[in-house]
Amino acid sequence: MTRRYVYLGPEGTFAEQALRSLPEARRARLEPAPSVPEALEAVRAGEADAALVPLENSVGGAEGVTLDEIANGSPLLITREVVIAVNFVLGARTAVPLDTIRTVAAHPNAARQCRGWLRDHLPGATVVEVLSNGAAAVFAAEGTYDAAICAPVGAARNKLAVLAEQIADHKDSLTRFALVGPPGPPPPPTGDDVTSLAVYISADRVGALLLVLTELAVRGINLTRIESRPSGERLGRYVFFLDCTGHVATARMGEALQGLHRVCAEVKFLGSYPRSPLPGEQRGGRGRTARPPVAAPPGMSDEDFAESAAWLHRLRTGDLS
Amino acid sequence: MTRRYVYLGPEGTFAEQALRSLPEARRARLEPAPSVPEALEAVRAGEADAALVPLENSVGGAEGVTLDEIANGSPLLITREVVIAVNFVLGARTAVPLDTIRTVAAHPNAARQCRGWLRDHLPGATVVEVLSNGAAAVFAAEGTYDAAICAPVGAARNKLAVLAEQIADHKDSLTRFALVGPPGPPPPPTGDDVTSLAVYISADRVGALLLVLTELAVRGINLTRIESRPSGERLGRYVFFLDCTGHVATARMGEALQGLHRVCAEVKFLGSYPRSPLPGEQRGGRGRTARPPVAAPPGMSDEDFAESAAWLHRLRTGDLS
Amino acid sequence: MTRRYVYLGPEGTFAEQALRSLPEARRARLEPAPSVPEALEAVRAGEADAALVPLENSVGGAEGVTLDEIANGSPLLITREVVIAVNFVLGARTAVPLDTIRTVAAHPNAARQCRGWLRDHLPGATVVEVLSNGAAAVFAAEGTYDAAICAPVGAARNKLAVLAEQIADHKDSLTRFALVGPPGPPPPPTGDDVTSLAVYISADRVGALLLVLTELAVRGINLTRIESRPSGERLGRYVFFLDCTGHVATARMGEALQGLHRVCAEVKFLGSYPRSPLPGEQRGGRGRTARPPVAAPPGMSDEDFAESAAWLHRLRTGDLS
Amino acid sequence: MTRRYVYLGPEGTFAEQALRSLPEARRARLEPAPSVPEALEAVRAGEADAALVPLENSVGGAEGVTLDEIANGSPLLITREVVIAVNFVLGARTAVPLDTIRTVAAHPNAARQCRGWLRDHLPGATVVEVLSNGAAAVFAAEGTYDAAICAPVGAARNKLAVLAEQIADHKDSLTRFALVGPPGPPPPPTGDDVTSLAVYISADRVGALLLVLTELAVRGINLTRIESRPSGERLGRYVFFLDCTGHVATARMGEALQGLHRVCAEVKFLGSYPRSPLPGEQRGGRGRTARPPVAAPPGMSDEDFAESAAWLHRLRTGDLS
Repeated sequence: MTRRYVYLGPEGTFAEQALRSLPEARRARLEPAPSVPEALEAVRAGEADAALVPLENSVGGAEGVTLDEIANGSPLLITREVVIAVNFVLGARTAVPLDTIRTVAAHPNAARQCRGWLRDHLPGATVVEVLSNGAAAVFAAEGTYDAAICAPVGAARNKLAVLAEQIADHKDSLTRFALVGPPGPPPPPTGDDVTSLAVYISADRVGALLLVLTELAVRGINLTRIESRPSGERLGRYVFFLDCTGHVATARMGEALQGLHRVCAEVKFLGSYPRSPLPGEQRGGRGRTARPPVAAPPGMSDEDFAESAAWLHRLRTGDLS
Repeated sequence: MTRRYVYLGPEGTFAEQALRSLPEARRARLEPAPSVPEALEAVRAGEADAALVPLENSVGGAEGVTLDEIANGSPLLITREVVIAVNFVLGARTAVPLDTIRTVAAHPNAARQCRGWLRDHLPGATVVEVLSNGAAAVFAAEGTYDAAICAPVGAARNKLAVLAEQIADHKDSLTRFALVGPPGPPPPPTGDDVTSLAVYISADRVGALLLVLTELAVRGINLTRIESRPSGERLGRYVFFLDCTGHVATARMGEALQGLHRVCAEVKFLGSYPRSPLPGEQRGGRGRTARPPVAAPPGMSDEDFAESAAWLHRLRTGDLS
Repeated sequence: MTRRYVYLGPEGTFAEQALRSLPEARRARLEPAPSVPEALEAVRAGEADAALVPLENSVGGAEGVTLDEIANGSPLLITREVVIAVNFVLGARTAVPLDTIRTVAAHPNAARQCRGWLRDHLPGATVVEVLSNGAAAVFAAEGTYDAAICAPVGAARNKLAVLAEQIADHKDSLTRFALVGPPGPPPPPTGDDVTSLAVYISADRVGALLLVLTELAVRGINLTRIESRPSGERLGRYVFFLDCTGHVATARMGEALQGLHRVCAEVKFLGSYPRSPLPGEQRGGRGRTARPPVAAPPGMSDEDFAESAAWLHRLRTGDLS
Repeated sequence: MTRRYVYLGPEGTFAEQALRSLPEARRARLEPAPSVPEALEAVRAGEADAALVPLENSVGGAEGVTLDEIANGSPLLITREVVIAVNFVLGARTAVPLDTIRTVAAHPNAARQCRGWLRDHLPGATVVEVLSNGAAAVFAAEGTYDAAICAPVGAARNKLAVLAEQIADHKDSLTRFALVGPPGPPPPPTGDDVTSLAVYISADRVGALLLVLTELAVRGINLTRIESRPSGERLGRYVFFLDCTGHVATARMGEALQGLHRVCAEVKFLGSYPRSPLPGEQRGGRGRTARPPVAAPPGMSDEDFAESAAWLHRLRTGDLS
């Protein structure tokens, strides 16, 4: 049966581009959802097999809505991450000269990321803020506005002429997406995995967060990302979203998770999944350019954990040699 | 000469409401700015004496743009914080029954905060997303849409009839604003102050953040907020925005700041200023309902710091009694 | 076959008294050894089933020789501890008045512990330092010196008249002994056990010892004793002797030991054995006056460890409910 | 007026040898004291200007009595340390062959340190334990026993023939002595100093000792030695004797000491004094072989402390550039 994936729409955004980069998406049915909550709701209701939603952007930061919606409600599981370069283009109905552009449709985040380019190349144009990159492309295609800042896939889908490429001020801006499915066993470890958690801490800030970081550090777990989000109840209470290097199936990560479970008010496991190669990087294979996985500190490798477990077994059985 | 304050516009938003709550705003000239960057730029350019901009919302989280714009560029100083209740209303041109409402203009954040109320009271209405709470009120006043989710000040300014009050799902949703001025000496300590910092850490995550938190904990400094933001360069590098209890003028905070300065790649001091009372709370005076300031842990009060300094002086001068 | 136990001699010392307090000693052959190294050597050579040797005294501190000799050489296992009150008496050949005593034989430690009493009651007497409490009693019995500071068992064995009891300045001075046998499985957990370790740390002092203590603290392991001893190589390198609350057979202690094994240059396991009641305290049973075992911190009980392991198992098998 | 120094006697021990190595001892009157308590009492009573007493031995460990006696009673100040090689010799009345030796007088610690040599070279001799190295030499000189294990100075003073030199099993065994005077200002910093402390902690072990080590680590203070001693009250309560790299007059050490003072039940300052060169090492000067002082961790030098203080001063006065 054809699998059905939803993604944060509308069509023509970076989320669609990210989803199309996945091998499993090739023969699946792909459908846009109007919002992250609706995309995830489709998975929770069993109407979609998975949802592709944005997690964070290297310039704009965390997608708070995604984090909140994954952590609240019935459990979901991240099974994949995808990182793509955010390559904004300026598109228009026809290939007109830049100095004829008077109005540019853009999502506020996109406009902010391209502010320097707009000042240098379209100093006289007015930026009209719209609600998504996909919508901007549609407005340009319809002629409502002269041009749009949008994703390459949005320009293509709306048959826009690309007047300029790579117009973001940070050339290497990246966006990270997650493929989110129903609860189940995580994909098997690959040796270079990420584990995502939502950690709720109960009381005072310093002590509690120190405890959390210490539980990780003692097991040599590398923290690649930390986001605090208000718990929605009052200012000053937080949930922390953590991304850690490693997989729940290993002894190291298993011990660290148990430690967090004991000291935190609540720990929600959001998934263990293969680390995505960055754009331009190959994952594995010959001639690979992949970053190596983050090495464990001395004494903290999976082998060290296995060796220490064997040592303990000897102590317990009376072999002190 | 009349002082000039800018605030995040348009007119009729919560930022204007927050600024008007300040005594110093009463005789000042208040002007909206189209965006946070433009508000802060007015201060940096010397065109405004201070800017009132949002820092965080108890439901939506940090205002990333504000944090980024304060921390980057020439130095600025937070001299005040204001916390106000985010009291959304449903406004319309005239006092019509709810069941006649077909379209509601709302900023996406506002729509999200009122989702439950909309589902219960306006199940058949379409929410049209617009770019600010102020713009929503204008659209309703013009009749473009039947109603608007907006701030009370926005309803009043546009002469809207208020069809429903307190429609946010979290009744006690709060927004915190900062009054940001040019660099200079911070306001004097009041005994209940907040110090805001932007802390850049250089290398590996776990160790570095543990070091930062340890520098604070060792001086008994309470951390009331931590936000990680991407440094804008690549995924996985962060700046941390910290709010701490205490004032830069005290020995405790001074020692902690020096410690951070020594172990971090960079520490930007964003200000020491009086803690704002929460809505409904009085700051000081008789019959006050104010929360007491967060107490220092045992041995960590300002008196303990003074006593330990006196003890050290005795050691150095040979008095070991 | 009759079991053979050795103890630190000569006869008539507190070590013999401690050994005789053990039920298993009742039908065993008990023999003094001239020194701690020789007592332990008898066990290592298979000539004795166990040796009873002093570990520490509440006034004099650690018995460094015992710690060194247990930790160096082929492995040994502590299977029991015994704590007895050090109840010094003044003994003499006959029941003479105190003011006739001119010379008192005493081990230097004993003389030090009774210094106040000697000053008050025998201001004119000369203290002659001898090499053990047992030797002091023998000298008094032979009439070489007028009196001896010795253990009650030493006075009895040498048929001395007891001129004064409880003459130590600290009335509640205690000595702790260990029963040390060949390597083998430790005795089963009783719910109130001690685990003894020798921990070697490799490099810089602050960081390394902090790491050791953190490994214990993270598992809620209580440290009841820490002794640093020079490693015998040069000033500034140490081995730490640790006594911890708990038993190697539990998940908590097992995880902590594995952690120490990973971060330390070497960890020698010296035994897990029942905590000794203090003198006057009953171990278990009705009407008991026993101290309760040290409670685990919140979230750190054996039950919490079992619960967190079950939670981890659910995560790994896809049960996120 | 001639200064008067006392040292742990009797004459002919390593303490006398250590004291004679000090320049200030050359024209002073040197007198043995029968015990460490009596040596220190002479200083407390004003009868001596300073006392030279042993602190620790690289094989035997801490001299517990010295630590206890310095820390208890009225304050004293360590103003110097001296480290000498413990170079045991075998001395006899005349230069007889080794195989004629039947009895050897030795202090138990000395006998233990020379155990291997005795087994190899005097397998048939009996070791008679006596109460000091000086007493052993006297017994050999008097002919009571055939030979003595003693210090070179003890052999010389008693005109013994040296039958064998360097007979300790650890060739590089070192003993560290302290020169202890009345309270007063410490000697000025030399850039390579030691600070000695007695630190009393109140309650639970793990947490409290972790706090102490953290206060030091946060200021980059290197701990060169830690000794726990029973507080004399009951098993399980301790005072810790710490030796740290640095001088009380510096900002770094001053801040660390203040921190300890705030978190500990009590901190006794025992002195800041120049680090002693090891035997064979020159302190300073041309062609010096001295170990460099322990370097501060990155960001923790005295210069870093000065720079961070200047930075804080700028923040407080409004200079955020």
